[in-house]
Amino acid sequence: MTELHQLPASIAAKKIQANELKSEDLIRSCIERIREREPITQAWVETNFDLAIQRAKYLDRSTNLGILHGIPFGAKDLFDTHDFPTRLGSAIYENNHPNSDATHIALMRQAGGVLLGKTVTTEFATFKGGKTTNPHNPEYTPGGSSSGSAAAVADDMIPLATGSQTAGSVIRPAAFCGVVGYKPTYGKVSLGGVKSLSPSLDTLGSFTRTVSDAALCVAAMSGDTQLATINKIKKKPRIATCLTYDGELASAETITAIHHAALLAEDIFKTKAPAIQLPTIFKDMSALQGRIMWSESARSFSFEQNNHSEQLSQQLKGLIKMGSAISYEQYSNDLIVAEKARATIDQLLTESWDILIAPSAIGEATKGLTQTGDPIFCRVWTLMGLPCITLPLYTGPNQLPVGVQLVAARGRDALLLSVADALMQA
Amino acid sequence: MTELHQLPASIAAKKIQANELKSEDLIRSCIERIREREPITQAWVETNFDLAIQRAKYLDRSTNLGILHGIPFGAKDLFDTHDFPTRLGSAIYENNHPNSDATHIALMRQAGGVLLGKTVTTEFATFKGGKTTNPHNPEYTPGGSSSGSAAAVADDMIPLATGSQTAGSVIRPAAFCGVVGYKPTYGKVSLGGVKSLSPSLDTLGSFTRTVSDAALCVAAMSGDTQLATINKIKKKPRIATCLTYDGELASAETITAIHHAALLAEDIFKTKAPAIQLPTIFKDMSALQGRIMWSESARSFSFEQNNHSEQLSQQLKGLIKMGSAISYEQYSNDLIVAEKARATIDQLLTESWDILIAPSAIGEATKGLTQTGDPIFCRVWTLMGLPCITLPLYTGPNQLPVGVQLVAARGRDALLLSVADALMQA
Repeated sequence: MTELHQLPASIAAKKIQANELKSEDLIRSCIERIREREPITQAWVETNFDLAIQRAKYLDRSTNLGILHGIPFGAKDLFDTHDFPTRLGSAIYENNHPNSDATHIALMRQAGGVLLGKTVTTEFATFKGGKTTNPHNPEYTPGGSSSGSAAAVADDMIPLATGSQTAGSVIRPAAFCGVVGYKPTYGKVSLGGVKSLSPSLDTLGSFTRTVSDAALCVAAMSGDTQLATINKIKKKPRIATCLTYDGELASAETITAIHHAALLAEDIFKTKAPAIQLPTIFKDMSALQGRIMWSESARSFSFEQNNHSEQLSQQLKGLIKMGSAISYEQYSNDLIVAEKARATIDQLLTESWDILIAPSAIGEATKGLTQTGDPIFCRVWTLMGLPCITLPLYTGPNQLPVGVQLVAARGRDALLLSVADALMQA
Repeated sequence: MTELHQLPASIAAKKIQANELKSEDLIRSCIERIREREPITQAWVETNFDLAIQRAKYLDRSTNLGILHGIPFGAKDLFDTHDFPTRLGSAIYENNHPNSDATHIALMRQAGGVLLGKTVTTEFATFKGGKTTNPHNPEYTPGGSSSGSAAAVADDMIPLATGSQTAGSVIRPAAFCGVVGYKPTYGKVSLGGVKSLSPSLDTLGSFTRTVSDAALCVAAMSGDTQLATINKIKKKPRIATCLTYDGELASAETITAIHHAALLAEDIFKTKAPAIQLPTIFKDMSALQGRIMWSESARSFSFEQNNHSEQLSQQLKGLIKMGSAISYEQYSNDLIVAEKARATIDQLLTESWDILIAPSAIGEATKGLTQTGDPIFCRVWTLMGLPCITLPLYTGPNQLPVGVQLVAARGRDALLLSVADALMQA
């Protein structure tokens, strides 16, 4: 029997609206699950169960506030909250108590969502792993940087959690933990109240167990409430697989997953899903993404570097140094090349293809907690600002999840969700 | 004789580097000027003279940190600072003490700049005027929303100040106060640590008394240090005047100013500067800018609206209500139209023209302090993300400054500064 904490948010929300379920009962079930599993999974930096129950009781008495009425969620501890500390995965911000909520959190609360707590992020959403373990096997990384959000949702602690991606920080942990990770089109969700890393790349997204919930979560985060309704597909989508120029890094399980996903899509949509390669301008795009990311991040960490250098990890200090060494001229040129590539992919993804099926990560989660894995298969899509979703469709040799990533043209989030939903249902 | 507080930053910086001037003396002169004029001009929310002098003394003993070594500056009180409260022009944030600096402030300090204090912003950088008066006549508005930054620089209290523009909040107050206001290309300066209003539009910029100082200030704010050096113009620039589709709102003094600026440009560059009209897609662009701004701002103020509604002004509450009433579909369509217009203006400003001469505001500053004037002549350029600079070239019938705005293609900030500098020198 499905327990309350296992319910998808979209179903729970309907039940709450129909007076068939109390928010308080749903949230108590989630709390119980957290108490049971948190000693192993370690997904949370801070929770406030009393506050959540109090809020749930209020919502159970009040009229419907919006699409998340009574639904619990978690937020990455990189995002400002007025009632929880915001530590950004760094001792520098141990006592950081913002006076407001990040825009997307305020919008989720406005829609009736109940913030249960803050989830673990790696150090400033970069690469140094935190305490969180992979719910499928605690010896393996949950991925990062949105480690706690991915793990909490995978472990049925909460149905919805928010995260951010600058390279691969939504898609990779979602793939490693076996949940749906959705990074909408760049700019879709406000970055207000979010620690800035690389403003040209930073994008907020969701962790959920179903595609409907991904749609619901980002609908609330962005204020685009219509996105919550997944449309029926009217026209046969043109689907291709694409390993990018980094394809040789993909593990056998990832190659197999892409192959199976293509067959599945062909079967569902009665179409061919051929393998394509990106235009040659994309050859160096992953390296270019890295340079833009660290050139901008080096500037974004200027305050921490100049005032709290001793509390930054050696790893992050090395990356900041590397970023600082990139000339502004190189950075400007990289931005221009990226914009050209964006025009190219916009054309390719409107004129020739609707959806690309691509790897979410190199393979299964890697062993150990100090590193969170390689974001290589997300770099290009993040730089292009395209909407991406990873689906937990397969399992690898270590019995860990293997995700498959779907990518669409900028702004075509609704289509992406429709195709993703069809694949997940099948 | 020029007093120290009247020195342009670019000249003072060279003198400090050559050991001909002490930062401490420069800053003491600025402090004296502030003490003298602040009772009338009211440009500051908070200053810390002891801290500034202490920092100046340190810099006078230390090796050169960067292009702003020993130079005092002010920052709009919309930007996070770890050593000053950040009140955002609202009683809601009376006790707001962030734990870090906004990215651009951290970069200015890293380059050796000395933050003297926080300057007055209107309520959340919107329209409700603050206490600041126009240094040319205290019965008139300094413009807004970056009121204090514009007035402090105009009143020779500091050579550099930073501000933000979502509609016309850099260009308009600079024009009203008779200083150089420079809004660089959208995205040039990081928005990290800045209260988000309308993420598609928000842009940081500078207030200075010379074009060289504008280049210096934004070079430090952005990390693009090469921008500080104004290039000689190699190729005759193609210049046109453009009143936009809102031209009929321009006052007589503004029309005269544009006319004179065109003659001046024709004389300097031995070229013709004809009047042009924008393509028809720009007809509704000002209204479109307003809709995008308030649709996004309504979401950005979700936290304040839901938690501190009683502390928001009636005026702002009205605008939030108006923004909330704009459907997401309308907003999405507006974004698409804006992107089309952006492609059109990019083409126009690379293929046909290098620089457009345009109004900075309707006319001189208006009387009274409750309103800060109309941003109408900035809306289109802000929405297009173009670099803009206003030059204090003329005076109107009330003996108040009248600015002239120059506009260039996205990313062509260096060219804009070169042409602006030539006009200011002449």
